[in-house]
Formats: sequence, structure tokens, C-alpha cells
Amino acid sequence: MSDVTVSSFSALSSMNALWQARYGTRPPGISLPESPVARSLMTHRSVRAFSPTPVPDGVLEAAVAAGQSASTSCNLQAWSVIAVRDPARRERLARIAGDQDFIAQAPLFLAWVADLSRLEHVGQMRGRALPGLDCLDTFLGAVMDTAFAAQNAAATFESYGLGIVYVGAVRNQPEAISAELGLPRRTLAVFGMSVGYPDRKQPTAIRPRLPQQVVLHSEQYDRAAASNPEVLDAYDERLRTADAARGRPARGWSDSVLARLGDISALHGREHLPQVLRRLGFMPGEA
Amino acid sequence: MSDVTVSSFSALSSMNALWQARYGTRPPGISLPESPVARSLMTHRSVRAFSPTPVPDGVLEAAVAAGQSASTSCNLQAWSVIAVRDPARRERLARIAGDQDFIAQAPLFLAWVADLSRLEHVGQMRGRALPGLDCLDTFLGAVMDTAFAAQNAAATFESYGLGIVYVGAVRNQPEAISAELGLPRRTLAVFGMSVGYPDRKQPTAIRPRLPQQVVLHSEQYDRAAASNPEVLDAYDERLRTADAARGRPARGWSDSVLARLGDISALHGREHLPQVLRRLGFMPGEA
Repeated sequence: MSDVTVSSFSALSSMNALWQARYGTRPPGISLPESPVARSLMTHRSVRAFSPTPVPDGVLEAAVAAGQSASTSCNLQAWSVIAVRDPARRERLARIAGDQDFIAQAPLFLAWVADLSRLEHVGQMRGRALPGLDCLDTFLGAVMDTAFAAQNAAATFESYGLGIVYVGAVRNQPEAISAELGLPRRTLAVFGMSVGYPDRKQPTAIRPRLPQQVVLHSEQYDRAAASNPEVLDAYDERLRTADAARGRPARGWSDSVLARLGDISALHGREHLPQVLRRLGFMPGEA
Repeated sequence: MSDVTVSSFSALSSMNALWQARYGTRPPGISLPESPVARSLMTHRSVRAFSPTPVPDGVLEAAVAAGQSASTSCNLQAWSVIAVRDPARRERLARIAGDQDFIAQAPLFLAWVADLSRLEHVGQMRGRALPGLDCLDTFLGAVMDTAFAAQNAAATFESYGLGIVYVGAVRNQPEAISAELGLPRRTLAVFGMSVGYPDRKQPTAIRPRLPQQVVLHSEQYDRAAASNPEVLDAYDERLRTADAARGRPARGWSDSVLARLGDISALHGREHLPQVLRRLGFMPGEA
């Protein structure tokens, strides 16, 4: 099968078919053990066109329960999530976060927040200074806690037939996002997530990824495998073909890397993150 | 049911029972829609005692395929994973990463690597400077890509009946880890993951988490809900009871926050992350 014809969320029932859709090849000499969880995860595709149907009751709570069930560094649980349903607020968030209309269209927007504020409050209640809060590593741990939780939530939403897309553009103007969501000091919305039922008239497809041998190494990092020009060229071509078939800009992977990182203006303000973090109360004494 | 008696990975079959194990209460006035994926995610508990049984063929590849199926910022795919099976190397990694014996015991150790090296290589192949690589936000995006992928892999391992534990202590001595794994410039092992079948003689349990109203907010951040002293006290007590029943240090949540963040020495070297990042080739021009 081609990797561009997968347009239904439930079309693929076998591990091998999902592998083929993601990598464009059969699994090389291995047999993939069956797992409904793995199949659901491998079926992921980002959705950017949503139906207006609301998210059913209980779905958000189940997704957050799955999120809270994820690992968290030292059990600090250094994250929060803000559920935005108000259409006017979603419209404002869409403008702040890169003018992305799907934020206004999807019935639910989640702002995933790295949250050291709650931990600072625990110190205040106990009358203890918490110098660890000022360290970049602690902020990084909060970001990872947030990402583990959000990914479990994403998997849960998708298991119910909903679609999601992550929104990194909440970091374009972090302080405008903080004001809109009433975020306290020592918190940062590190990414958003639009959630809703996919618009069936605008089907999505599984997007090809780099061959597994480029990212999975044995015992030590294999530089030759990670940057084999022939392998990267072949991936460029495969991604170009897949994106063209979906009506997306078809520039291949290498060119998209150059476009994103070759000019600071492509970061849309995110280049100021160190200064923003300090203004938001992170890392006052270092970096 | 008590939240401390859950010792088998497959004991809980209902969403409500899993909610009760995690929060100590029934779902408050909501009905949780059924989802086998959510149930599997909600069953997570970290495993730190492993049987020597090897990880079956195909499981790692399926887990990495699920990881690569996760969202990735701008499709940069800025991560790699190093699979370490060699017992001598696992023993050395156990010593570097906080003397944690389970790293030597579990048959598989994964080092999850935020990887800007591959992107830098793309720029070099095309003769293009990539100033975006120097920005903290780009490093942060790589960390989030890594976390999304790792969490999908964790969910996949657990769906096969394997257990995992994340290892943040690879950041105690990042440069020693880099040397052991042959990591190139502009990469950082942001966390590890031990993988194997749980030792049935040392059962684990679902660990209580903060009540959902503390982390899930509607429309705007609710400071009163996030730091309600009565709610936090009750969670302290619930966690203390659960940890005591498992023979773990039972100090409650607030005290563990103070212990972790109240003294820089508790970071075991991670307080030097900004300088380490610069030496590893990240953010040379800023922060």
C-alpha cells in the first residue's frame, strides 16, 4: 500500500500495515508483536480541520487521568492544563498563537503548562526557600513532566476517535498567552493542543518519518547511520511525494529543516525564550 | 478498594477502578467512557526490580515505531535513542546515573537523546548556516520531541506486559554519559529508561496523584484550586499511607518537594545544566 492513501482513523488494523504507512517499507526481518495500544499510537496523525461536535463528557477527565498516570520526575507533578472552551477566548488564542484558525474551530483547546508555581507555594506554606526552583534543570523537568502527561492525553483522545494537534506557537508570545490564561509567576504554557472530532471532508494521513535506523542506535551513537546522505535523500523524496498527494507544501525534509532553522525570523519570537523565562520568574539567578 | 493493594499489571479492568486507585475517590459525577488505551495508560507504575528475561524480538522496534508516530515540532524529529544491552555498559551507566542498580539489572536500557546534531549535519550538507540551532527554544523543542516519543514507547512496552522506569539521573553527569554513548556535539541524553519484565517477587502499585482539580483548570488558571491547603494536606496523607504500605519512605508530597528543591545539593550536579549545555554545543551565543 502507498503511504498517502491512509485517510480513515480506523482503516489500518495490522502492525505491519501501520509500519508500512510510516516508513514506506515492510519491517526489515522482524516480526512485530501484536498490541492494540501500539496500533492506536502508530495510527496518529495531526488533525487541523475539526467538526463543531463537542467533546463528550468524561473524555477530558479520562485524558487528564491518563496524563496524571504518566511518570513524573520525583513525583513533583510540575504541570497544569487549562481547558479552554469559550469561543471568544479560543479566537483570541488563535490570533496570539500564529493565526492558526483551527484553534478557534476545534471545540476544545488545552494549554499545557510547565508549573513551578504550585511547588513554590508549597515552600511558602512551609516557610522554606526552594533554591532548586531557580535551576534550568528544574524547569526542564517540568517541561518533560508536561510532555509525558500531554502525550498520554493525546493517546487517550485519539482512542476515543477524536483528533488532536499540538500547538508550539503558544511560545511565540508567551506573555500574551500568560495574560489570557491568568497564569501565575513560574509557569509557562509550553504547548497547546486543539481537540475535536476530525472534519471528515478534510481527511488526514499518516505522515512518513525518518527510517528507524536513523534514530535507533545500538550501544553507541552511530554517526554514519544518523546522517547517511542516501537515506536522507530517499526520505526527502518520500516525504515530498506524500505531502504533495495531500496538497501540502512538498519541499521534503531537508529543505524544511533549512527553512525552520536557517533564519531566526522563522522562530517568530521564540528566539527570546531565555529573557522571557527570566521575566516569568524562572532561573532568576543563572543562565 | 484501597489504592495500595494494586500489585498486578492486569488486575484492574475498569476505568472507575483505575481512577479510584490513582485518586482515592470515585470519579466525581462523571462517567468515564471506556477505552482500552486509556486503561493501559492509567495502569502505569514505575518498575525498579526486573527479571533477567530478555526483551523479545520486535518489541523495541514496535516501541520506537510508536515513538516515531508521535507528534514532532515542525517534523524536525530532533531525537535519537540508544539501546544498551551490553551488561558491562549498563553497569557503568548505573554508576554514572546515581548508582541505580536496576539499570544494570534490567536487560535493556534506553538513552533518550535530544538531537540537534542530525539537523546541523543537514545544514552542513547543504552549505547553510542554521542559526536557529543556537536558540534555547530549539533545544526545548528537541526535549519535547524526545519526551513525546519516549512516552509512546513506554506505553507500548507496558502494553506488552513489560515494565519501565524513567531515569532522570542521566543528567547528573551528562558529559560522562555522552562519552559512554559516543554522543556527538549538540546532543544531550535527557533521560534514560530501563525496560524489562517486572520481578514478580517485588510487586509495584499504582501511585496516588494530586486530585484532578489541582492540575486541570477551566478557562483560566485557578490559583485557589492549585494550592488549596486542605486538598494538599489530604494528598500528603494519602501518599504517606500508600508509600508506607509499599515499604517506601513515607514523607508525603510536600516534604518530598522540600527535600528535592530546598537544597541545591539534592540536584546532584544538575544545577550546572546551563554550563553543560554550552559545552555540549547548545546555545553558544545566548543565555
